[in-house]
Amino acid sequence: MREPHRDASPSSKPAPKAVVGRLSLYLRQLETFARQGRETVSSSQLGQALGLNDAQVRKDLAYFGQFGQPGLGYPIEDLTVAIRRILGVDRDWPTALIGLGNLGQALLGYKGFRLRRFRIVALFDNDPRKLGKSFDGLTIRHTDELPEAVSSQGLRLAMLCVPAEAAQRVADHVVSSGIRGILNFAPTSLFVPPDVSIVAVDLSVQLEQLAYSVHNLLGDSSPADDISAAG
Amino acid sequence: MREPHRDASPSSKPAPKAVVGRLSLYLRQLETFARQGRETVSSSQLGQALGLNDAQVRKDLAYFGQFGQPGLGYPIEDLTVAIRRILGVDRDWPTALIGLGNLGQALLGYKGFRLRRFRIVALFDNDPRKLGKSFDGLTIRHTDELPEAVSSQGLRLAMLCVPAEAAQRVADHVVSSGIRGILNFAPTSLFVPPDVSIVAVDLSVQLEQLAYSVHNLLGDSSPADDISAAG
Repeated sequence: MREPHRDASPSSKPAPKAVVGRLSLYLRQLETFARQGRETVSSSQLGQALGLNDAQVRKDLAYFGQFGQPGLGYPIEDLTVAIRRILGVDRDWPTALIGLGNLGQALLGYKGFRLRRFRIVALFDNDPRKLGKSFDGLTIRHTDELPEAVSSQGLRLAMLCVPAEAAQRVADHVVSSGIRGILNFAPTSLFVPPDVSIVAVDLSVQLEQLAYSVHNLLGDSSPADDISAAG
Repeated sequence: MREPHRDASPSSKPAPKAVVGRLSLYLRQLETFARQGRETVSSSQLGQALGLNDAQVRKDLAYFGQFGQPGLGYPIEDLTVAIRRILGVDRDWPTALIGLGNLGQALLGYKGFRLRRFRIVALFDNDPRKLGKSFDGLTIRHTDELPEAVSSQGLRLAMLCVPAEAAQRVADHVVSSGIRGILNFAPTSLFVPPDVSIVAVDLSVQLEQLAYSVHNLLGDSSPADDISAAG
């Protein structure tokens, strides 16, 4: 496989969240193009498929080096490999799922994770009624066993699907067990040391963003309109 | 109830997503303070509880007008009411849930929505084995019945939990039925008209953000490090 052509002057700082988020979208779209048998794509074709303009696509990719050659577009396979490396999804991420309530069980069945090499390989819950039960071939263990599992199974990420009131305590335990990445589904803010990464998936916050947007786009008649007028 | 003190010069444009996201966090924290019996809060106290600095808090709130009085802090109840109005969560949002697979069922049981007045009042799925079944007192109907339900139940938002390959078709139908806000859980990009708001909850994108961040914070030795060095 050819190495993507790159210049040597990428930024040395981690990219902004928005750029990283768009890299994920580019990756998915490139995979779609590849399944369709295509071999190259221009920045405007890639942008158009995602509702972005070509300048945005070029700027985002330039953040990580120079890919492709002017006028020839990007070789799809090479760019796919490069983005997977940049994101870190060119390797397996053994992941612990903590909290096997409704949401935890739904996430366990979510196919998107496996596609991206996030493999849920260990389940934890402290509810005595759940301990020892199996889902998907994995047995639910008490979080006391987390440190041992981190070393024996090489766990690197944890998804927290525990109630809000337990989340900080569980997060502290996750961190002290050696895990450096947390995906937090509990509807509360968590504090972690600076060398630990955390991404919050707060569904009610996202619904509120949607409500704000609908509310403003439609210009609902309401007492709030005087201070949040539609643009 | 007192009206919050406001100046008359808020921005007339919708606020940036990041600001709206933080408003949700402020709202949650204010509600926590209120439960603890507190009546006022300073920008630095509010910021500290959320890991933000006081200047950020003041700047975010100033976007929507002037709240509170210098030196006295913000009256918690008034600010809570104001933020609910700004976000549009001072009213009910009758919501349709479309797609009753694992994730859809988990969302139906998610308490956070109800707390924010997002009421799931109608269920849709086109799987013949699911039609007519009931969850939570609601009967699953075919999406053909969506337009009628929009007018009779006043549905305003839709949560899409359908497979990626069906998502655009279902979204088009949702839009043509008169719904103007979509929370998309399907792992694919959707196109909607400019007067329709859409928020994507793509869990694998969020995990990729986490992987990128862990990968860069830890400075993993990998072939990708030459182009995405830790900062």
